[in-house]
This record gives sequence, structure tokens and C-alpha cells, in this order.
Amino acid sequence: MANANIQLVVVGNFVHISETNCQEIAYLHDHIMIVNTSGKIVFFDRGNLTDLRKEYQFNEKDILAMTSGQFMIPGLIDTRATATCFPMACTHMDKKSFDWLENCALPAEAQCFDLNYTERLMQKLVKCMVDNGTTTACYLMSMHFDACSTLANITIKKGQRAIIGKTCMDRNSPYFYFETSNQAYESTVRLVRTLRSRVSPLLMPVLVLRLRQTTTEKLVQKFNQLSKDLGICIQTTMAQSAEEVKIAFEMFPNNKTYTSILDKASLLTPRTILAHCIHVTEEDIQLLKDRNVGVSHCPNSNISIRSGIFDARKFLKYNVNVGLGTDIGAGYSVSILNAIRMAITTSKIISIGKVKETAYQPISNAEAFCMATLGGAKVLGLDKRIGNFQTGKDFDALLIDCNVDNSVISTFDFDGLEEKFQRFLYAGDDRNIINVYVAGKSIKSN
Amino acid sequence: MANANIQLVVVGNFVHISETNCQEIAYLHDHIMIVNTSGKIVFFDRGNLTDLRKEYQFNEKDILAMTSGQFMIPGLIDTRATATCFPMACTHMDKKSFDWLENCALPAEAQCFDLNYTERLMQKLVKCMVDNGTTTACYLMSMHFDACSTLANITIKKGQRAIIGKTCMDRNSPYFYFETSNQAYESTVRLVRTLRSRVSPLLMPVLVLRLRQTTTEKLVQKFNQLSKDLGICIQTTMAQSAEEVKIAFEMFPNNKTYTSILDKASLLTPRTILAHCIHVTEEDIQLLKDRNVGVSHCPNSNISIRSGIFDARKFLKYNVNVGLGTDIGAGYSVSILNAIRMAITTSKIISIGKVKETAYQPISNAEAFCMATLGGAKVLGLDKRIGNFQTGKDFDALLIDCNVDNSVISTFDFDGLEEKFQRFLYAGDDRNIINVYVAGKSIKSN
Repeated sequence: MANANIQLVVVGNFVHISETNCQEIAYLHDHIMIVNTSGKIVFFDRGNLTDLRKEYQFNEKDILAMTSGQFMIPGLIDTRATATCFPMACTHMDKKSFDWLENCALPAEAQCFDLNYTERLMQKLVKCMVDNGTTTACYLMSMHFDACSTLANITIKKGQRAIIGKTCMDRNSPYFYFETSNQAYESTVRLVRTLRSRVSPLLMPVLVLRLRQTTTEKLVQKFNQLSKDLGICIQTTMAQSAEEVKIAFEMFPNNKTYTSILDKASLLTPRTILAHCIHVTEEDIQLLKDRNVGVSHCPNSNISIRSGIFDARKFLKYNVNVGLGTDIGAGYSVSILNAIRMAITTSKIISIGKVKETAYQPISNAEAFCMATLGGAKVLGLDKRIGNFQTGKDFDALLIDCNVDNSVISTFDFDGLEEKFQRFLYAGDDRNIINVYVAGKSIKSN
Repeated sequence: MANANIQLVVVGNFVHISETNCQEIAYLHDHIMIVNTSGKIVFFDRGNLTDLRKEYQFNEKDILAMTSGQFMIPGLIDTRATATCFPMACTHMDKKSFDWLENCALPAEAQCFDLNYTERLMQKLVKCMVDNGTTTACYLMSMHFDACSTLANITIKKGQRAIIGKTCMDRNSPYFYFETSNQAYESTVRLVRTLRSRVSPLLMPVLVLRLRQTTTEKLVQKFNQLSKDLGICIQTTMAQSAEEVKIAFEMFPNNKTYTSILDKASLLTPRTILAHCIHVTEEDIQLLKDRNVGVSHCPNSNISIRSGIFDARKFLKYNVNVGLGTDIGAGYSVSILNAIRMAITTSKIISIGKVKETAYQPISNAEAFCMATLGGAKVLGLDKRIGNFQTGKDFDALLIDCNVDNSVISTFDFDGLEEKFQRFLYAGDDRNIINVYVAGKSIKSN
């Protein structure tokens, strides 16, 4: 009699970051992963398949035996996908931070009042993200309740884990894209209730404030209360560009640091997802650590619209939780693999520019890979559920094959698991991601 | 009666850099391109197809009408492909410049004495380059004559335009990879003769000196003479890393600039292809311009092995000819599209770091695209033959389709030719390159 509680047994090689050692990549050969029908990992170790079969009573047909060219990694996590700006990607790469916000991001957001347009756009975006291995995305939508709801329906149907929020700003808004504090708050509450009513374990709401400078005290206070009462994260941005920092100090005088502006508004908590954080001091970073804030590092966006250069090493030195984000639109790539490469590139360029170069280590493959998986999970407050292959967590995973037809990766006879993984990390693409699992369910379209 | 002299007529949209304006990308709608049986462009303009058919007497079957999602760009040019190091790509990304040379590049080169290995390796590399749109590559091979000859056979069979050289160093060589000055010279002369005897218009020899520090005066003098007598380019490197610069000044005292070291050896001529040139002064750059030297910019290599940060803007300011190189192996990507993106990334990061940021413009899409096409052609001394769609030049081109099945690019209803091109530039890959032409002949394997 087969145990109806087991849905998948994967045998072969796995690569992940363990909770106990974030500094190294764990290359696990000949392991067995058993996933139950709730999508949770119930066994992950070496073992004897015959013995395990007796114990877990799974069917032969539920066994997936990976080939020697294949391995599994945890699903990739995008901590900041500005969904509305997806059409802007690649096409406005000459614009700078504020110019980009005003002339690209906000008009693109405003357009999402059109639900026909939004539906088509989000179908395209979600498919593209899943194909590229993003199993969890924190989506920032426009201010429109209906647009957010549309996106939620699409992610549920697709089976992607999604955290969705409507972006709020109740002052310093452009004439074509404006709502009052009450509208912003009430529409957010309605969205939170609606998303929670869907009873999907994969769907979560997030509160989104654009910038401290664009939100009133009143809205911030109400959001803080909501976040506390319901245990929902707040995503906002800080210190993205030099111009923004300047305006912040003008608007909030008597603050020595940018973080203190947010801290006074009680916006620095373990439920805060703080994007960018580029133009900060060590004092700022220390406070982010003290408040246990999660940081979303969006290297492609930072460089593409020239906001500034995020020094990941500094944040890791202070043990701040850092995840990766595409910030798609401002960043030109929807792929977290690209974010990994851009994060490493940025960090290496910083290291080259240092006078005492030997004292500064650019982020390693392990650190960048961690940001894309376990680090991202921590930033989103989901590390008890996803981020690596720990038993008890949901099975969110990518089946990688370096030898797939039309692969852009070149492999060689002498490649072991480590080399294969590295080739995927630096040169692989969606073609090498031959299956995508969220909570044990295969969701990649082929 | 059809004219046997015409082999291809392409109708639709084209994108290139014109000779007269390197600062802008020319987006050419509804143009007609007529290519003769020698692979040369004999007509390129708007025009009436019926009239042109009367004039050029081509067959209906020779007409390729591009769809609205398609366009053509000139073939991409790789000015520095260190072919031997291809297997090292992606897998040694923690190593730095000299460490990488000694422990990765040289052992990989040394292995090319094994012709079986070399044959398989080069088959893989050339296919991969062509699939990624590299119509012309300047390949640096190992010191082994037979390995170079093997590569030549493969590029001829594949139909790729190739410039091939055996890398020479006759001092400061490791024990496992060594030849005398005479061996280096004689083997090079033999290679030049052999490559020229193939009577392939697509195959050219290049003389390759690794570094001034690893070559004797005797070899340099002989190479200079050979280059002059036969009109062959010399490829060498300069100022790749800070350590290298230090050694150069120790070995060649009484030089105020690095370029003066090469200039005294008569190594700065219009036939010189100088890779890297990272750690240079404005005085150096001025001399490179005065001598009309071509520079091969390899951004992925520079950053990956942390050699340094090449400031493309400075070289463009002095009107130095700059092309792009993958420096594959040290760089992790075989794709010139990647080189374009990495060049832009590097330049944007430099611009962000500038105090007087507004006075410094990072390189534009046009400048990066130029480096990948016409700029590369100039560096290799081939701009009379390739680099753009000027009549009289060879038809080396890529047929791009943004809407191909499984495309990683997302296009939108409002995209015009400019947007499509930009999406390809930043997000496209080999799947969007649906055909590759060299001298009028289709060479992409599908």
C-alpha cells in the first residue's frame, strides 16, 4: 500500500546554502529528497532508497532520478519586482534615477488603471519570472486595487509564491497619479483582506510605501499599526540616489542620518523590507542591523539608472539580511541569475577601486547565491518556510540541467558538480531550468 | 534571365552604425539590401523592388522579406578570444589576474599539445561563438602550431571569419610551457604561411606576443619586421593589472609611461591590437591615438579576474579605436552581447563614482554597439571589409527576431524598431539570432 502522503522523491545531486553555514555552498551528492503532499520536505539526506520506501511507502512512479548532468537548487527569490515597470525594461537605459521615476515608472504605474492592459502585462511577467526560476516574488503593483487583484489571480493560477502590494504615496504625487491618505489606506486594507481571503498558502499581502518623502505621517502611522496588528511586512525604499538623500534631509531636518528619519517614524522593524540603501553610512547600517531590517539589493537597477553603488560587503559585515531584487523595469533583466552576476560584478568593481585592495573581499559565489535564496527568504520573513532544502520547509526548487538541448552552457568531461553549478551560475539561463517546483508542485510551462 | 551575380536580397529593417556618425545608431526602415555572389553588399537603400529587380536581375527565391518583428544588424566582432581558456570560463571566478594567468590560463594553453582535446574544444567554442552572433573572431591559440592549424580548419568549415595567432613568450615562461625565441618565431612564420596558403578570404593570421615582459628584444624585433613586411597585425597586452605595471617598470627602468616601453620596441603601430590597457594615464592614451593603435576592451575579463577598470570614455575622448573582446576564459561569457552590457555597466559604475558626475557621460548604447561592430573592425584593420552595412563591404550580418518561440525578450504592442533593438541589446540571446551570415553565406546551425 503506497502512502498517499508522499508526492515526490528526488534522487541525485543538490546544491544549496545551509542555515548553519552561509559562507559556503553545500554540494550534496547522491542525496534523497522526500516531499509530502503538502509540498513539505520530510526527508533530505543520503539514504537507502529501498529502506526509505518501506518507511515512507512511496510509489515507484513518484521517484525522480536526476541524471549526472542534473542537480537541484532552491527556487530563486525576487525581493523587489516593480511589476508595473516591466515594459520599460531595456528601453530607457539612458535615464537617471529621478528622471526615470518621474518619466518612466510613474506613467507606467498610472497605466495600470486599464485592466485589459494589466492582465496581458502580468501574464507575460509572471510567465517570464517562473521560466527564469523565480519561485517567490515580492511584487510592487500600482495604486489600483483591481490591478493588484488581477496579478494575484495570475500568480495563483500559475502556482508562483507571491507577495503583492499596492504602492502608496499620499503626497508629492504627480497630477496624473494621485490618491488621498484615506484612499491609500482603505484600498490597502481592502487588498490585504482580499488577498488573505483567497486562502492560498502561496499568496501574501505586503504594505508598500514608496518613499518617506512621498508619504504623510498619518499614512505611515496607520501602516505601522496594520503591519504590527496583522504581522505583514512593509516594503519601502531608502537612499536610492544622491538627489533623494538631499531631499530627505531638507524635508526632515534635525536628522544626522537617513535611517534616523525612518526610525523616528517607526519604519525600521524586522517586518521592514528596505530597498536600495545605497547612500548610507556605517552608522546607518549598524542601525539597520539593530532593528533587524531586511535589505533588498537590486544591482541591475542601481547601475542601469545610475542610482549609486551598493556595497554588499559592508552589509554582510554587519550581518544585515540581504536579498536580491530585479527591480524590473529600472533593472533590465527579469532574471535573478542576472541579479547574482550583477551583484558579484558590482562588488568586484568596488574591490578593484579600493586602495587597500587586499583587505577587501568582493562577495563570493556563496554569498551571492545565498542572497538569491536563503537571504531573500529572510528579508521577506519567509525563511522558516523557504530558502533552502531544510526538512520541514516547503519544496521550492529548480531542476537544473547543464546538458539540455540548445543549452548555452558548455560543459567539459572533467566537470564535477561544483563546476556544473558554477557554469549555471555564470552562464546558464532559463533553458537550463528544466523544471520549477513551488511547494512540491511543478509550475514551469514548456 | 536571372543575374547569377546576386545571391541574396533582404527587405525590411536594419540597424547599424554608419561611418559618418559613430555617435548615433542608424535605424533604417524598409530598406533593401542586395548581396552579390562574392558576398558583397552592392545596394543598400530604400528603393522599389520591381525596379531593382530589373536592374539587378535577381530571382524571387533570393528575396528574404523580414517580418515586422525582425531586423538585421552587422555581425558581432570579438577582438580577443583566448580560445585555449574556454574551459576555464565560469569556474575560477575567485582568482585574480596573475594567479589566474599562472594557474588557469597557462596550464589550459599547455594542454593544447593534445590535438584530440583541442579538436573537440575548438568545435565547441566556434559553434558557441557563431550561435551567439560572432561573425569575426580574433583567436589567440596556444604556442602549438598544430593546435592553431586545427582551429583554422574548424573556422573554415564553419564559415566564420577568423584571425588566428599562436601566442608567443620566449622568457619568464613556466617549466611546463616553454619554447625558445627561434622556435617561437619559426613556428609563427610557418603558421602565417600555412594560413595564407589556405586561400580562404575569411582566414587571416595574427602575430601574438603575450606581454612585453615575457618576450625578448630579439623576438619583438623579428615580429615587427614580419608585421611590416606582410602587413599582419600584432596582438599583445598592456597594463592589464597593477602587479603587471609594477613589473614592467622594474624590468624596463627609465620609462615614465608604460606606453613608452612598448613604443621604444616599435610595438605601437596601426597594426597593433592592444588588449586591456587598463592602468594607463592620459599621456598613454594620447600616444595610443598618435600611433593609431587599436584597443581591445574586455570588460567581463577585467572584472571577473579583477584586473582593473577600463575607462572607455577616456579612450573615446581621444578618438582611439576601441573594440570589444570576450577574453573568454578570463571572461565568463562567449557572447559579445554580454561584452556590450558589461562595457555599459562598467562605464555607468565609473560615472556614478565621479564627484563631478554631470561632467562625465557613461558610454551610450550607440558607443557600445559601435565597439561591437565597426569599432572592432577598425581595431582588427578590417573596417574596409566589415563592421557595418556600407555598400562594397562584405555582408556579415545577424538576422534578429524578438518574437521567436521561446524568446527570452518580452516585446510590447508599442515597440518600434528602436525599442526592439534595445530589448535585444539588453535582454536578447542566441535564440533571437535566427540567422548568421558571413560574406553572404548563412552559417548558423539550427
